[in-house]
Amino acid sequence: MATIKDVAKKAGVSVATVSRAINGKGYVHEDTRKQIDEAIRELNYKPNEVARSLFNKKSRLIGLILPDIRNPFFPELARGVEDEMQEHGFRLIIGNADEKLEKELDYIETFKQNNVIGLISASTNEVLSHYDNLSFPLVLLDRTSVEHPSVYANGLDGGRLAAKELVSRGCKRISVLKGPVETQTARDRFKGAVDELYTANVHFDVMTTSFAFQEAEYWAKELFSKYPDTDGVIASNDVVAAAVLHEAHRLGKQIPEDLQIIGYDDIPFSQFLYPPLSTIRQPAYDMGREAAKLLIKLMDGKKVENKNILLPVQFIERQTTRKVERDD
Amino acid sequence: MATIKDVAKKAGVSVATVSRAINGKGYVHEDTRKQIDEAIRELNYKPNEVARSLFNKKSRLIGLILPDIRNPFFPELARGVEDEMQEHGFRLIIGNADEKLEKELDYIETFKQNNVIGLISASTNEVLSHYDNLSFPLVLLDRTSVEHPSVYANGLDGGRLAAKELVSRGCKRISVLKGPVETQTARDRFKGAVDELYTANVHFDVMTTSFAFQEAEYWAKELFSKYPDTDGVIASNDVVAAAVLHEAHRLGKQIPEDLQIIGYDDIPFSQFLYPPLSTIRQPAYDMGREAAKLLIKLMDGKKVENKNILLPVQFIERQTTRKVERDD
Repeated sequence: MATIKDVAKKAGVSVATVSRAINGKGYVHEDTRKQIDEAIRELNYKPNEVARSLFNKKSRLIGLILPDIRNPFFPELARGVEDEMQEHGFRLIIGNADEKLEKELDYIETFKQNNVIGLISASTNEVLSHYDNLSFPLVLLDRTSVEHPSVYANGLDGGRLAAKELVSRGCKRISVLKGPVETQTARDRFKGAVDELYTANVHFDVMTTSFAFQEAEYWAKELFSKYPDTDGVIASNDVVAAAVLHEAHRLGKQIPEDLQIIGYDDIPFSQFLYPPLSTIRQPAYDMGREAAKLLIKLMDGKKVENKNILLPVQFIERQTTRKVERDD
Repeated sequence: MATIKDVAKKAGVSVATVSRAINGKGYVHEDTRKQIDEAIRELNYKPNEVARSLFNKKSRLIGLILPDIRNPFFPELARGVEDEMQEHGFRLIIGNADEKLEKELDYIETFKQNNVIGLISASTNEVLSHYDNLSFPLVLLDRTSVEHPSVYANGLDGGRLAAKELVSRGCKRISVLKGPVETQTARDRFKGAVDELYTANVHFDVMTTSFAFQEAEYWAKELFSKYPDTDGVIASNDVVAAAVLHEAHRLGKQIPEDLQIIGYDDIPFSQFLYPPLSTIRQPAYDMGREAAKLLIKLMDGKKVENKNILLPVQFIERQTTRKVERDD
């Protein structure tokens, strides 16, 4: 009967590696795992049942924590992560933390207990200490961090760009809707916009809003009751922008003549709004892909030079902003 | 030192129940589990480490399979499931099957191996045989089944209602966009609409479309190129309706004067479209809640009289349909 040594020899790896693969403790590279699997099959090697079940069950499972699956930005992120992971034979399970720390902690616990071998988190919680002593690699997504690997888009540029485009299109009284600023990316986005507006010496007001659907309508009404003369809105995200657009229609405002609006994210729905929403595009799907790639490298134990990957944002010109007349 | 018998006595349950709780094999009711947990703590009972880790890790985990998290209908379902599960102390992990059987099978395997104690599936696959021999309870969501417990909304009524509302508002050339009809609910929806249109003797055309975002724009263009005279659209869902509305604007059609549109689902975004979308509302969040409730009952081993729960749909009148003048 074949022994673990025979398997190791045939697969061309150490006994420790075979043991690691069989016991599901620690990460084993995909190719190595395939070799071991093949050797086991060819030699008809039988580890005991418990070990075998662990071998089958562990070590292909990745956890993903999303803050709010109802916001279409996050399913886009998730799809990017998922497609990359699937191409590499990993399985992804998703936990929706609902922007609550308690639920987030709960999911981390669940993932640990179910032997995930890597975690991607798009947490929106300010504190991240619960990610400090994980036994598997972690990548933060849609947020920055000094301590942890992360993939995020350039919020400072995004905020700046939104302000710049409105100013260049003649807005004189701009409302900046500031999202919840627990995360550095959201703070950056706000800072970018405000810096640009200061520099341009344009009047602006600031209102703090939520990012969520259920409250977007409320904030849109608040906005026009507080600042009825506003002629430009920098929305905290596309969901809020959609609500502002809706409310503006209700008040009989002409878009973009009376009021210009810029969203943030470029979720799939934004193109179907009327007028179609001009927005700052975060490459959500690509961010997901990049985070997955980075995590896979980390799980492979590869040396990673740049653990904080910054992706560019981009102004998507649609019709809630005026055309700039450049050649007239 | 306390024994398992002491724990059973103190908790007022059988040794078998305590063993089941500790070994994470089979379901133990929440209240019973709490009593056992308390008894264990009071008596300072120590099961061996493996058993304890199983006690902690197993038996609170529920799997949810969604067909497409990018369609906002499904995150709504998921939130309903999640809220109900959370109130009962369960944890929910989500798998996105991407409308692919292979991914769905993969998730079922993953859930099995991670010891979920119950599964809710919103599968869109025609074949369901892979759900036949699970070792834990299953509830199908957003689809009907004779063999399995299920929670779904009344597609027949929904289709009928959509047709009726367009006919009563004067549409003479209706386009029925038929979604992918792998599932009985989608077939019912289509049948309801067509039956009603036959009965009313109104001209109609049928076009088969996808439900997905990425393709919605294509179908919208196809629609108006094939049936330029259509004056009423029964869309397969709200995503497709949004694309049709967008394309109608592009073609300069007046809504609802030239063209009336009815969606299906009532996703959160529909209220923010312009004009706001009239649609058939499926109570997604409540469907999720009901599915969770049913699953919990099944996991409790309770006798369930009605294992196929049908929820009503409702016409949400917004502004893509004309006002009916009733008293003029």
